[in-house]
Formats: sequence, C-alpha cells, structure tokens
Amino acid sequence: MSKNDGVFNSTGVLKRIQFADQKQEFNKRPTKISRRSLSRSISQSSTDSYGSAASYTDSSDDETSPRDKQQKNSKGNADFCIKNIKQADFGRREIEIAEQEMPALMALRKRAQGEKPLAGAKIVGCTHITAQTAVLMETLSALGAQCRWAACNIYSTQNEVAAALAEGGFSVFAWKGESEDDFWWCIDRCVNVEGWQPNMILDDGGDLTHWIYKKYPSMFKKIKGIVEESVTGVHRLYQLSKAGKLCVPAMNVNDSVTKQKFDNLYCCRESILDGLKRTTDVMFGGKQVVVCGYGEVGKGCCAALKAMGSIVYVTEIDPICALQACFQGFSFAFISLLLYVVSVGNKNVVVREYMDRMKNGCIVCNMGHSNTEIDVASLRTPELTWERVRSQVDHVIWPDGKRIVLLAEGRLLNLSCSTVPTFVLSITATTQALALIELYNAPEARYKQDVYLLPKKMDEYVASLHLPTFDAHLTELSDEQAKYLGLNKNGPFKPNYYRSAAA
Amino acid sequence: MSKNDGVFNSTGVLKRIQFADQKQEFNKRPTKISRRSLSRSISQSSTDSYGSAASYTDSSDDETSPRDKQQKNSKGNADFCIKNIKQADFGRREIEIAEQEMPALMALRKRAQGEKPLAGAKIVGCTHITAQTAVLMETLSALGAQCRWAACNIYSTQNEVAAALAEGGFSVFAWKGESEDDFWWCIDRCVNVEGWQPNMILDDGGDLTHWIYKKYPSMFKKIKGIVEESVTGVHRLYQLSKAGKLCVPAMNVNDSVTKQKFDNLYCCRESILDGLKRTTDVMFGGKQVVVCGYGEVGKGCCAALKAMGSIVYVTEIDPICALQACFQGFSFAFISLLLYVVSVGNKNVVVREYMDRMKNGCIVCNMGHSNTEIDVASLRTPELTWERVRSQVDHVIWPDGKRIVLLAEGRLLNLSCSTVPTFVLSITATTQALALIELYNAPEARYKQDVYLLPKKMDEYVASLHLPTFDAHLTELSDEQAKYLGLNKNGPFKPNYYRSAAA
Amino acid sequence: MSKNDGVFNSTGVLKRIQFADQKQEFNKRPTKISRRSLSRSISQSSTDSYGSAASYTDSSDDETSPRDKQQKNSKGNADFCIKNIKQADFGRREIEIAEQEMPALMALRKRAQGEKPLAGAKIVGCTHITAQTAVLMETLSALGAQCRWAACNIYSTQNEVAAALAEGGFSVFAWKGESEDDFWWCIDRCVNVEGWQPNMILDDGGDLTHWIYKKYPSMFKKIKGIVEESVTGVHRLYQLSKAGKLCVPAMNVNDSVTKQKFDNLYCCRESILDGLKRTTDVMFGGKQVVVCGYGEVGKGCCAALKAMGSIVYVTEIDPICALQACFQGFSFAFISLLLYVVSVGNKNVVVREYMDRMKNGCIVCNMGHSNTEIDVASLRTPELTWERVRSQVDHVIWPDGKRIVLLAEGRLLNLSCSTVPTFVLSITATTQALALIELYNAPEARYKQDVYLLPKKMDEYVASLHLPTFDAHLTELSDEQAKYLGLNKNGPFKPNYYRSAAA
Amino acid sequence: MSKNDGVFNSTGVLKRIQFADQKQEFNKRPTKISRRSLSRSISQSSTDSYGSAASYTDSSDDETSPRDKQQKNSKGNADFCIKNIKQADFGRREIEIAEQEMPALMALRKRAQGEKPLAGAKIVGCTHITAQTAVLMETLSALGAQCRWAACNIYSTQNEVAAALAEGGFSVFAWKGESEDDFWWCIDRCVNVEGWQPNMILDDGGDLTHWIYKKYPSMFKKIKGIVEESVTGVHRLYQLSKAGKLCVPAMNVNDSVTKQKFDNLYCCRESILDGLKRTTDVMFGGKQVVVCGYGEVGKGCCAALKAMGSIVYVTEIDPICALQACFQGFSFAFISLLLYVVSVGNKNVVVREYMDRMKNGCIVCNMGHSNTEIDVASLRTPELTWERVRSQVDHVIWPDGKRIVLLAEGRLLNLSCSTVPTFVLSITATTQALALIELYNAPEARYKQDVYLLPKKMDEYVASLHLPTFDAHLTELSDEQAKYLGLNKNGPFKPNYYRSAAA
Repeated sequence: MSKNDGVFNSTGVLKRIQFADQKQEFNKRPTKISRRSLSRSISQSSTDSYGSAASYTDSSDDETSPRDKQQKNSKGNADFCIKNIKQADFGRREIEIAEQEMPALMALRKRAQGEKPLAGAKIVGCTHITAQTAVLMETLSALGAQCRWAACNIYSTQNEVAAALAEGGFSVFAWKGESEDDFWWCIDRCVNVEGWQPNMILDDGGDLTHWIYKKYPSMFKKIKGIVEESVTGVHRLYQLSKAGKLCVPAMNVNDSVTKQKFDNLYCCRESILDGLKRTTDVMFGGKQVVVCGYGEVGKGCCAALKAMGSIVYVTEIDPICALQACFQGFSFAFISLLLYVVSVGNKNVVVREYMDRMKNGCIVCNMGHSNTEIDVASLRTPELTWERVRSQVDHVIWPDGKRIVLLAEGRLLNLSCSTVPTFVLSITATTQALALIELYNAPEARYKQDVYLLPKKMDEYVASLHLPTFDAHLTELSDEQAKYLGLNKNGPFKPNYYRSAAA
Repeated sequence: MSKNDGVFNSTGVLKRIQFADQKQEFNKRPTKISRRSLSRSISQSSTDSYGSAASYTDSSDDETSPRDKQQKNSKGNADFCIKNIKQADFGRREIEIAEQEMPALMALRKRAQGEKPLAGAKIVGCTHITAQTAVLMETLSALGAQCRWAACNIYSTQNEVAAALAEGGFSVFAWKGESEDDFWWCIDRCVNVEGWQPNMILDDGGDLTHWIYKKYPSMFKKIKGIVEESVTGVHRLYQLSKAGKLCVPAMNVNDSVTKQKFDNLYCCRESILDGLKRTTDVMFGGKQVVVCGYGEVGKGCCAALKAMGSIVYVTEIDPICALQACFQGFSFAFISLLLYVVSVGNKNVVVREYMDRMKNGCIVCNMGHSNTEIDVASLRTPELTWERVRSQVDHVIWPDGKRIVLLAEGRLLNLSCSTVPTFVLSITATTQALALIELYNAPEARYKQDVYLLPKKMDEYVASLHLPTFDAHLTELSDEQAKYLGLNKNGPFKPNYYRSAAA
Repeated sequence: MSKNDGVFNSTGVLKRIQFADQKQEFNKRPTKISRRSLSRSISQSSTDSYGSAASYTDSSDDETSPRDKQQKNSKGNADFCIKNIKQADFGRREIEIAEQEMPALMALRKRAQGEKPLAGAKIVGCTHITAQTAVLMETLSALGAQCRWAACNIYSTQNEVAAALAEGGFSVFAWKGESEDDFWWCIDRCVNVEGWQPNMILDDGGDLTHWIYKKYPSMFKKIKGIVEESVTGVHRLYQLSKAGKLCVPAMNVNDSVTKQKFDNLYCCRESILDGLKRTTDVMFGGKQVVVCGYGEVGKGCCAALKAMGSIVYVTEIDPICALQACFQGFSFAFISLLLYVVSVGNKNVVVREYMDRMKNGCIVCNMGHSNTEIDVASLRTPELTWERVRSQVDHVIWPDGKRIVLLAEGRLLNLSCSTVPTFVLSITATTQALALIELYNAPEARYKQDVYLLPKKMDEYVASLHLPTFDAHLTELSDEQAKYLGLNKNGPFKPNYYRSAAA
Repeated sequence: MSKNDGVFNSTGVLKRIQFADQKQEFNKRPTKISRRSLSRSISQSSTDSYGSAASYTDSSDDETSPRDKQQKNSKGNADFCIKNIKQADFGRREIEIAEQEMPALMALRKRAQGEKPLAGAKIVGCTHITAQTAVLMETLSALGAQCRWAACNIYSTQNEVAAALAEGGFSVFAWKGESEDDFWWCIDRCVNVEGWQPNMILDDGGDLTHWIYKKYPSMFKKIKGIVEESVTGVHRLYQLSKAGKLCVPAMNVNDSVTKQKFDNLYCCRESILDGLKRTTDVMFGGKQVVVCGYGEVGKGCCAALKAMGSIVYVTEIDPICALQACFQGFSFAFISLLLYVVSVGNKNVVVREYMDRMKNGCIVCNMGHSNTEIDVASLRTPELTWERVRSQVDHVIWPDGKRIVLLAEGRLLNLSCSTVPTFVLSITATTQALALIELYNAPEARYKQDVYLLPKKMDEYVASLHLPTFDAHLTELSDEQAKYLGLNKNGPFKPNYYRSAAA
C-alpha cells in the first residue's frame, strides 16, 4: 500500500478497502449485499456537503444499468452516462427554477459576456448533481470553461438534471443509485479520456482528488488548483499539505466566512423547524427542548424554536458560549424533556444513559456535523424494540412501554429530512466559481502548494452579488470616511480574522 | 518636546498643549473659561470607557477645593485627597450594592483566601472611581496588592465611593469636578510618593502611563506590566510598541472576547432603549428607525428596537454584514425617518445634508465609538435655532419650523444618557484583575515588551465565573469526547482567532 | 323540492343537484368523470374543518369497491364498511401515537371509569375519520356511548384507522376515495339501521344533519342535541334557527374560545411555515411578504414570518387591527413583493390586476377561511400558461415569461399542504366530547331549540385538561382574593364576552 | 350622611372622612402631618389614571400658596389659580412638544374649523393637568367649547403647563403639591361660579362628579352627560346606575377597546423595561423573572422581558390564559427568583410568606391595577429593616442580611417610575373628545341614564386618526367584498363584542 493511502486513512479505514478494487475490475458488478455495505461507506464520507432533495422522477421504471445503455443526445453526442436522456425537458425546468434563486451566478454570467475569465479552463468536477450544480456548471461554461462531471454521492443525483446537462452537451457520468463500482467508474470516465486533460479540479469530499493522486498523478503537472467544498475533503487536503504531498494550490471553500455564517446559522434556523415538521408533525408551541451546544448551529436552532413558542434549554462546554446563552434567555438543564435536539459536533453527546431517563415520547435528532453525536449503537440491544413508523422515523420502545422517537437514525436531520433552500446553495456555488476563477487566473507566485481560504474581499464580493435579491443597497464610504477608518473604499472592510456576529 | 510626545500626538493635538503645564504650576487654578475648554479635551479622550452614573450626593454643598482641605479617616490616615470623608457610610452602601452584581470578583476573593496571587504587588491605578471600581480595588487588596488610585475622568468620580475607599485605607486622589490641573496633580500624587514605587499599572485611557513615561521613566524598571482598558489607551500602547518604545509587557483588556461581546451586543441592546426613554419618553412601537451600521452595536440596537415593535432600516458598507441584516429581516433605506440612531464607528455618517431632509420630530443620536459620527458642527449655523429642552436634549429648529431632536449633542447616548449595568462592568473588572494576576505572576519569558490579548483560557475563566449568577452549569467533556475533539477537558474550547456569533 | 332545501341552498347551489340522486340510486356507480366533478363539490363544502394527513397505506392495491366486499372483524362482526380490515394493526399503532398527543381525552377516560356520563347515548357521527377521531370515538365509548360513524369528506379517511375501529367493534362506514354516491350511502348506513336510533348527532359540515332532516325527520324526536364543528355547518344551523326550523338544541363548537384561539393563532403560526416549506422549499430569511389581513390568522402568520427573518407588510380594512399591526412593527404596503400570503376571510382579496403587477417568482397562497380569497378563475385565461411543477404547486406564466407560483390552486394552504398537529385537534375533540356530555345530561329546560356556545366554564375546563402536558400548574385563588375579585374560586374567571389577547 | 355617600363608600372608606370637611373650612390649612396623610388617601384613589411625568420646573422657589397670590395673565384675566403665571412660556413649549405626538387631536382641530361640534358646550373637567391634557383642552376649545378645569391628583400638575393654559385664557385651578383642602377648593372654584353653569363633565376618578352630586345636585338638570376615564370613576358610575341614582348618561372611556388594547398591552410592554431601568439599572439579559398573571398587562411585560433575554415564568388562575402562556413558551413556576414582577389586578398576590422565600437581591414591583397586589403592610414588622436607597427604591432587609428591593412601595411601577408616551395618551384623549362630542350632540333618545361604552365605530375612528403617524393606509372594501362579508364599507368592521387579539 502506498504512502498516499496513509494520508487518507485517518478519515476512514473503509477507504483502504475500496482501493483494493482495481480499475480493471470495474465491470464486475458487486452482489446486492456487498453493494449495500459499500455504498454506506461512501455516503458516510460524503454527508458533510449537501445532498439533493429527492428526485421527483420515478427511478423504478427501468432496471437496466446506465452503463449498459447506448444513449445519445439530440445532437448525436454520446459522451456521457446517465439514467435516461428522455428526462432532459423535465430536468431543464428544474434548472430554470433553480436559476431564479441563484442570482449571483446569473450575474456572473452577464458580467462575463465580454471577458471569459475561464477561457481555456478544463474543469473536472465531482459534486452532488442537482439543479443547483447544473446552474453552476452552465455558469462555468458561460465563463469559458469545459467541464466533465461525476457525482460525489451514489444517491444524490437528480436523474432528470443529469439528462438536461447531457442534452446540453456536458459530459456527465452519474445516476441515482450507483454501486460503489459505478461510483469510481464514473469518476474515472471523467478524467481518463483521450485528448483531454483537466487543468482545474472542483471536488466535494476529496474522492476525485484522491483518484487522480492514486491513478494519474502525472496529471497534476497541468493542474492549476483544486477547489474543495466539504469538511472531509478539506481535512484530507490539510493532511496532504502537512505531509508535504500537496502538489498544487488548493482553495478551502468550506471555511469561507459567507458559507459558514449563512449555512450554519440562518439555514439551520429554518431547517430545524422544517425537518421536525416533515417527520413528526409536532407542535412547537410550549414544547420543552434541550439543544446540546450553543455554537452557530445551536444558536440558529434555539432562535427558531424559541420564536415558535418552545421552551428551550441548552447545554454547553464552553463558558463563553454558555454566557451568551444566558444573555439570550436560555436556561441550562439536564432534564429528560419532550423534544430533544442535538446540535453540537462531537461524539456520544446523547448516550444511552440519558435516553434511558428521557420522558415517553421524546424526540431525538441530530443537527450536528457528523453521525456520532447520538450513540445509536447503544440502542441496538435486545430489550429495546425498534419500530419504523414513517420514513426516517423510528420508535425505540423500552420494556416498560416508553417510546423514544429517533429521527434519521441519528444522522443529520437537515440533510436527511428537510431540503436546503437553493438560495443558500447559491452562496456556496458562487464561492466555488470565484475560487476557480481566482486559482485559474492568479499569477503563479500568488499561491503555493498549500491550502488557502478565499480572500476576504472575494467573500465580500459573494455577499454583494446576493444583495440585489433583497433590494439591499450598500452605503459607500466617502473619501474622507475611508481615510478616517483606514479602509479602501471598495473593501475589504474587515480584517481577515474578523468573523462578524449574527444576532 | 521629547520623542515620547510624538507617540501620543496622533490621538489628539490637545495633549501637546496640556503638557505645556509644568508640575510646578499645579497650584495655579485655571480660570473658569480655560477650565471648561481643558476639561473638554480630557473627557473627549476618555469617553471610550464607561463613565459612572451620576453621583447621588449633592456636590454643591461645599465650594472648598479638596486640595485645600485637611481630612483624616477614622484611623487617622490622611494619605488621600477626596471631597468629603464624611460621606463614607453612604459610599459603603453603594459598594455593597455593587458587590451583589459582581459575583466573579467576590468569587476571586474567596478563592484567594489561602493564596495571595498579588502579594507584593504595588498597583497604581487610574480609572473611573465608582462603586464598581471600588469592588475591584478591594478585591485586588484581598488578593494581596497595595493600591494607589486616581480618576481617569474629571467628572465621573462618585465622591461618596471615594470617601468609603479612603475610610477603608486606600490612597485615593479624586473628586467629581476636578480641573485639568487637579487631574494631573492627582495622578502625580499616586506615583510620586516617598518610599513606595508601583510595580503594576492599571490604566484607562493611557494618561497615567503617559505621565510616568513623561515624568518618571525610570519607574518602568520595576514595573512588571500595564493593563489597559480603553480603545484610546490601547491605541497608544500599540503605537508605542510599533515605535519600539514600549518597555514593559502590556495587556489589552479592551479587545478581550468577553468584553467585546457583552459590552457591545448585549449591553447596547438594553442601553439603546434606556437612553431613548430617559431622554425623550418616545414610544417605540411602530416607530421607523434607521440604524447606521450593522456591526455588533448595530445588531444589538436593531434587535431591541425590532422587539419593541419599531420598524427598523439599516445602512451598511460591508456586504457581509449587509447580507446578515437581510437574513434577519431588516430593510435597507435612506429615507428621512422619524427616529434615527447611529451606531457605526466612523466620521460624519450623519451629515447636514441628511438632516436637512429628515422629517419634523426626527430624533438623532449616537451609539458609535466616538463623537465624530454626527456632524454636529454643521448644525451650528445662524439659520438654525438651538433650544435646550431637557438635560442632554436639544431641539434644532429649521427656518420652516422643522425640529430635529439631538441627543447628548451627538456624544455617545449610552454613556451620556443611560447607565451601564454593574453586571457588565463586572466582566470588565474581572478581566482586569486576571490580567494583573497573569502579568504579575508570569515567568519572565512569557511576555515580551509588547501588547498582548488575554489568553483565550482566561477569557473563558472570566465567563465561567459569571455563570453561577444565571444558575448555568457547564457540561463537562468526557475523556473520550475531549480526545475526539482534540481539546483539553478544561479548555480552551475554541482557537484564539474564534469569535463566536451572538444570535 | 322541499322547503328544507331552501335552508341549505345558501351555502351552495350544488347541494340541490346532489339531492336529485334518490336513495334507490345508490347502487348505480357514477362514471369516472362524473365522480370527479361531484367529489369536488363535496370537498369544497367540507374544507372548513381539518382534513387528515395523507394516509400512509397504499390504497392502489385493491380496486374492488368496499361496498362489494364481505368483511368481518376477528370477532365475527360485519356491521361496517371499510377498505380493508387487515390494516387494523397498522391503524391501531397510528391511534396509539395520536393518544400520546391527546392528553385531555385520555384524562376524560380515566375520570369516567366510575361514572359513565354518556351511558345510554347513541351517537351518530360524521367527521373526518383519522387517528384523532378514533381517539375521540373510543373515548365516547369509554364514557358509555354507542357510536356509528361516517366520513364527512370523500378523501380524508385513513383506511387503516377505519380498519382498526371496525376491528374494535365500531360501525364505521368510510374509505378514502368515496364517490359522492358512496358518501351518502355511508351516511345512510349509519342512521338507517334496524333496532337502533341515534339520540345525539356529532357533525362536521352539516351533511349528516341535513340527511336526517331530509330523509328521517321523525328521528329528531329522540335526539337530544347536535354538536357541530365546522363554519359551514354552524352557518347552516343558524339559518335553520332563524327560519324557526331547528327542532333540537345545537352546540356551536367552532366558535368556542379555546378552538378559535388555538386553531387560528397558534396553529397558523406554525402551519404557514410548514406549508410554504413543503411546497416550495423557499428560504424565509429576508423574503418580503405581504399578509392580507391582520386578524388572528394574520397575526399568527406575521409573527412566524417575522421571527424567521422575513420582512412583512400587511394590509387591513379595520383601523383597530391596523393600529395593532403598527405597534407590532409591521409596515403597510401594496407593492408587488416576492412572497405573498393571504390570510383574510373575504372574496377576491387578490385579484388579477394585482397578480399582473407582482414580481417574477412571487408565491401566492391562501390561509383564509374559504377558497374565494384569491381570484384563481381570473388566471384561467388563454394568454397565461399553467405548469404543474409539483403536487399542489402551479407556475402561472405570463406572456413575458413572468411566473407566479400558485399554491394549492388558491385553496387553504394549511389544510392542503401541511399537517395539523394532533395536539390542536385534541382541543377540538375534547370540546366536542364535553359538548356531547353537556347536551346529553343537561336538564331539559337549560337548552332550547337554538344554537349555543359552550359555557365559558367548559372552555376553561378544556384548557385546564391540556395544561399538564406543559407541566403548567394553575395558581388557586385564596378565599380572600376570590371575594375581592368577585369570582368563584373554580371559575369561570372571565365574563362570557371576554376574548383574551394572544401576544 | 346622605345615601349618595354610601354609593361611594365601597371604593374607600377614606372618602367618608374627607367629606367631614365642610366647604366653609376651605381656608383652614391642614398641618404638615395631616396634609401628608390626607393627600395619600387621595392619590390612592386616583392612581388608576395616568399621572404626569415629574414637572421640570423647580417648585421649591416659592413657598407662598397660590391661593394667597394675586395673578393676572397678559390680557388682564385673573379667573384662575395656579403656581406662577410667569412659567407660561416654558409650559407652551411643553404643549407644543406634546402636540407633535397627538396627531389625532390636531386632526380633529383641522376638521372642526368649519363646523364647531362643541359650540355651546360648557365643560368642567377634573383630570391630571399635563401638557397632554392641555392639548385636549385646547382642542375642545377649538371645537367650540368653554372649559373650566381642576386637577384630579394633588401631585401631578405640571405648573408650567397650568401657567400656559391660564395665559391662554383657560380657567385653571391647580398646582403641584395641593393640600386636600386645596384639592376640593379648586374643584369647587370650577363649578361654583356666577353666571356660568357646566353642561358637560369630563372626570378622572369621579371626585368632580361626586362633588357636584354632593354640593350642587341641581346642576345635573342642565348636564348632558359625563365622560369618565378611570377604573375607579367608572366603578362609581356603575354603582350609581345600579342604585338608580345616575341622573344623566355617562360614557365609560376606560373600557373602550382602543384604550384597553393600547394602554395595557403595548404601553406596559415598554414601561416595564423603562420603570425597572430607571429605578434599578438592572441588566435584563439572563434574569429570571416571575410575572404573576398573563392577562394583557402580563402579556406585554412577558413579551418585553423575553425579548430582552430574561427567562420568564408566569403564574395564572385562568386556564385559558395559562394555555396561551404555554403556547408562547413561558414556564410555570413558583420559585423564588431574582426579579419579580406583579401584573395581575388582585389582592395580596405577593404575600409575606413568598417574600420570606425569595432570593437575596430579588426585585419586587407592581404593574397591576391597584396598590393591593403586594402585601407591603406585611413587611412593616420590627425584624425587617427598611433602607431607602434611591427615590422609589427601598431595600427591605431580613435579619440574615437578605435584601428585597421593593419599588415604589408596591404602587404601580409604570405610573410611579416611568413616563407614559404622549402617543398613548393621545389615544385616550381623542376618545374623551369624541365621547364628549357624541354625548353633547346625540338625540335625546339615544342615551338614557346609564353607563355606555363608546360605539364600536368611534373606537375605529380613534384608531384611524392615529394611523397616518405610521404611514399606515387602510385597504378599502370593494362593494362586492362588503356585500360578501355583510359589512358597511365604512365600518364598523367587527361586532361590538369582538376584542381583537394582540400577537
């Protein structure tokens, strides 16, 4: 096993097993059972960026594997592999709907009509393939880039969107319900193509980057940079960098101010309500809730539930966040209450002992960063009965009849049981586009073989592109004021280390 | 003029003039007129830390200057100079009331009953002399320190508190309504004393530090460090440091996370309402308000006014803050509305042109950092009539009869027209005490001749000392969780650069 | 046509046509097309009480009409007509889940273990047949009553719940997807039974009451009273009363304080968010919304949207409600904004002219009392294109490409696109149960042939039965206090005309 | 003692003693001590309508009783008795400031420029004499009325306003600090005047009405009606009516919808914060508060404190209000918390036993209807020490050192320690003016010798006159909509019994 593998190991031992598969094995289909277990390992490593809403098309109509089909788009192009090219019209409508909520990308397209900042760029991408991604891809194309794309998650592809992209001339390799073998085959088809070599990578989770490191390391000679969105992928890049193995500049989009602030606080403020309603139809008014952790996610959850009339208690480990919770009027508690929300990123925050003490009917869910917050494994014991009452909703029943309502088996509620507004994804997608432009056009000396955050000024630019949606117009500094404050009139307006509060 | 002076000049040319006064001139009393203008210059440089609430004792009873009085406390000690030692009992009651809202200092006293972390410390201080400061001083004393103290503002001393301190054995030199000459005389009396030399400085505004630099530079040989609270003082220290002239370590208390977060956001959330009510009795419900700036102060003002039923509009220069305002439901406007609040730290945010367009009855006030936000000078023109309707409230009347209600002549509303809760001052005072302890006890190598922020862990400690007031108990990390998160179980829980949001 | 018909005509001319069907025609099945149009007329008249959430069982498995099936429960009883008795277990679980959120009915069961206040009562009911209704029916049974039941809506029956009821021995006649003919046949089967005659009616919409008036008027001799829940049904009863044709006392449950307050304000506060999310996944933060009408429903919608960061404008006709909106910080507007909510009960509040002026992407929906608020008919013109993008979501497209997003074709959003929390239904169901008990047990002189509101004290009792869920304990008046206030210690605490505010 | 007295007795036995004073005793001045106790009895009976803010003029300058002074206004008129006519200019400015916040009265003046609906009216008034009352009086005058006026409270007169009124030609008899003897003397001077007899009464507390009943009963022959504002006065009127002794129609302004809604809910929402800050400078964030009673006052207090970050608990006797509190997210408690607010109108809600159990530092105050809520008498025992720490603030100290902070000695906090926004008083004053117009102009048959509420339509009119301040424009019903709703296009829009919610 190569040293590169070691770098990736820390994020999950399963990866090591995956690469026992060699490329020549692609055509061997895994059995039903092994496919199931394999796909789990992939989805687990990919849950930290947003999955799509359920696809609205029925995928049960056709059991043939896309790899076995011969499809062409209306212009005769066959350089793609998707479920069903006939769904293109429906997918186009989904893309048009998404365009309306992604004003910044549409603005970028307009501004780029003259100049083509990505002219000559050959981007290989591996992300969720959804209507929002399609808007990003078509924007990149409008800016001058060529794109080849695979899915970063075996379940999240909207087949009809993939069809619309293929019909539009994009080389897309993705469908909902890929096997693990399919997954790597699709990635390989994106990069392993005659007469075309990528010079930019857009990744979500690091699988594409890993594959190129593993199989085609020489490709990095021509690659100008990597843009990575997910926590996991960023973590891998930092490890590569530490180990001195990162051979191109990389941009960490995940930690950009705009993404953090809006994804975490504002988005969770809405999705906590949405996720709970869709799964349990619970009434919020008067419900007693414990929110574990008063970081940004916790602040969003607490604000929303309080506004809906819930009585909210928090727990915290950090005294500063705890004091903030005090000033916002939240009590501290460890009582066994009716509705229970977990928001912290940590391990075993909710353990069996606590669940043993919870009241009958208590709902337990996770808004944290990963799947480790609730110790679900501790509930898989013989004396407890599990009853699946709805999709994503289990009743876990104690011997005395007490029921705990467990949502999404402890996985992230907002990704599993609610949707993410397109407008939030727009912020991320715009950041990705700007990161690609920056890396592609930067003078060679600007970025070294390291991981970078987007410059503050670009963060501010992403924000400014989203303001017209709200009819929000900025005040401009006068020359005198700019001088007084020691600022450039066009920004950046805050030091790089500043992270503005969110009240 | 020495080079040191150059360092301080940038904060105000007035300083240069002040030092034309030589020490031997102390006994010459300034005329009424010059006293007025001089005191203004001082108070201007000192408004960035909190002034006290009005003294409740009547200061008009006695016209004799304290410098001309002979007073002793009940134990025969005469090493102080205050208004009237007979007010000591009343001052003691004020101190006792303050103690109830300063739980962290009281906790420090208890913990220090065994060890005396400030044993041997000789602290010279120059701060507002209020009940809250008295609690701090008596805490420092309980921790082992000797203290000599002067006022950092000629108006803010609570005479009865000074009396209680003098009665308690502290060498205090301060009274309400000092002349500028008195001001420097008092500071000098603190440091220029036979057989005693300070080894720690606690400053608020930098005047004490400046005086020692100017008059007794050799004292710095024995001084272990400076703790500075105000924006102005910190600014001076950074300039000294840049110029290579800072000869001891200094601790910047002003920018500690806890102070920033609680002083700015939560305190302004309350004081904007309080200041407006006390001056104008205005009804908030339904009032249209423009808040200029959506930083932490602006966020606090907006949240409070929105909660009281005002219709709040904002202006911003920074697109990220602007986008936050959007997500919180604030509109952007530059219309001439009924109630007008300024919160940004900047120059001439509200200029004459805007005030010309405001509606009749519009209230204009300043919650910013300094006194430059509202261009009050532009209102001092012959065609406008000024009418003082209440203390701190002027009507400025346009030729057509339109009235603008200007509060505190454009100075900071919350310092001028409302009080600051003791609990908030408790956070600052505790931070000061910890900074003194840290600097006094740190091994020599830890701090160089530079300006430091309080270590994150101490910030967290300050916060944790205030949690019992709210019955808030922290959750402790298990060993397993601490390992998973890569944290020490006792903190710090966030990286130094982290500034938590405030929703 | 009889005179009775005239009474009902005012609520809908369609009714007249329905009764052209004679009882002997029951076995003629309507064609697919006519069934469709007929069912529409019924559901329209019944939307004013809550329909159920979608049934979770698959109804497509079996095309045989229940009327053609022979089914028995496990005890051999066949006096029912439902979809499939085999679903009983699944239905029982749904009922058990509902029981957990209906604490007041469960408390009534316990209290009635000794006394049986409905012993001898023979109740015929016509309501939505859902898990919540099942909890009510089983409570009535525990209180001593016999029940026969039909559905008040052809779509709303939860088949599995009907199965569980039939298995439990209830004579239920209802399934999801009845034809209009089925609808009346089921009602008839409830009342037209040998050896059993109802003495109480529980109705929702007035169809059952109407049927008895029409077909079996002599039954009223034995009937002690009618309990009616819906706006439509209550309207019919008041008309009967006015016309001097009401021959038994009737209880108007719809207008009881508890129902009004909690159904309208608190329930809409949650369902406006839920309905919008489920249909459009829209982000609330920063959205500009017009809410037409600031009554209780409007107040709930406005509070929720404001709390989520929307910028909310209102329109009102009543100056008192308008002034309340002012004090709560809402602006008045008639601009064409992005998200548009209708809450008032009125006709043509949103007309074509306004929709012509709305912005692209504007969402239009109805939270009002009926289906007349949005002039949907005016959108059915040739130049506008309708596109169904999801269930309950249409894009109406103007010739210039502008799209309006119309939800539920203008029908009530919360009934069509969100669910109603069981806890809210619990309040209504408890009120129904108490109304039945009151009418059944009242001395003959208490109620005449008129429509009554539930006595204030019973309203208070309903509320008090729901308090334990929230751990809310009432304070009891001392004798001295009761005397001072002139109140009975056990209530009622407010005069009958009092309707408490809802801040 | 006459029977009339019996009617008034129930509101306070003290009244009986007062009338032992006979008119001829007016010139005997009470001693200091007796004046003190007498004035207490009066102020107690009058606290239920708003007192004024403190007068801004210094009243200590002149010890001569106004009754001993000879004063004339600039036109030579001497038919008044006030403190000092020279303060007229200052009072005029206060009136002008008030005019800006009383848009409805100013609108009435404009509309009445042609017609004079009060032409011929001779109004005798007894209310607080403040700038706001002056705007009302000058409006009545502009509408055609003649006015003579006395104060309804011996402390609340703004001397400078009285001066401005006298200067403007009004016969005013009032000053700050009247003795009880002065009080009745002033009232008598208003009515007992040669050649002038009132035909309308505007009263606040019922003292004027009582005086006329007592001394000049024959005057009622010419009086067209009484308009009464206070709870106490209304109570007296209802008792007169019950006893068959009311000999003219009376209008109960206190219970008009507009007054109730805006005075209670919105005004208390602001004044709870204002009153607490001005007396204690307490920080709201994180404070635990118990609000006793969740009626409209309680709702306002709870909403404000929650918005400022307090943790609010409630107590209730009425289960419906209790359930509302649940849905709004308030917990129920009877624990001894840090900050304690009383809002209910009742007797001995906070008894000694509870205060014995409260935490050290707990603040106790009253936002209720009268002075009976807190059992202050129970704190006047030898083992407790009272310490006056500020005006309106007492520390009550238990033997173990525990301190309770009692505000305003248990009297109403918002009247004692905060001011009432002029805009709120504008609503009341407008209602009074309209009530006077209505009674004065109504055809004789419309009102009998009874107590009436203002017609709903007039309530709506008062509200509509205040909307322009907020730029709030009403939507008008179309003919079709009015018909559909069964409403007149110009209102009233709600039935008389309707009291809209206040979310």
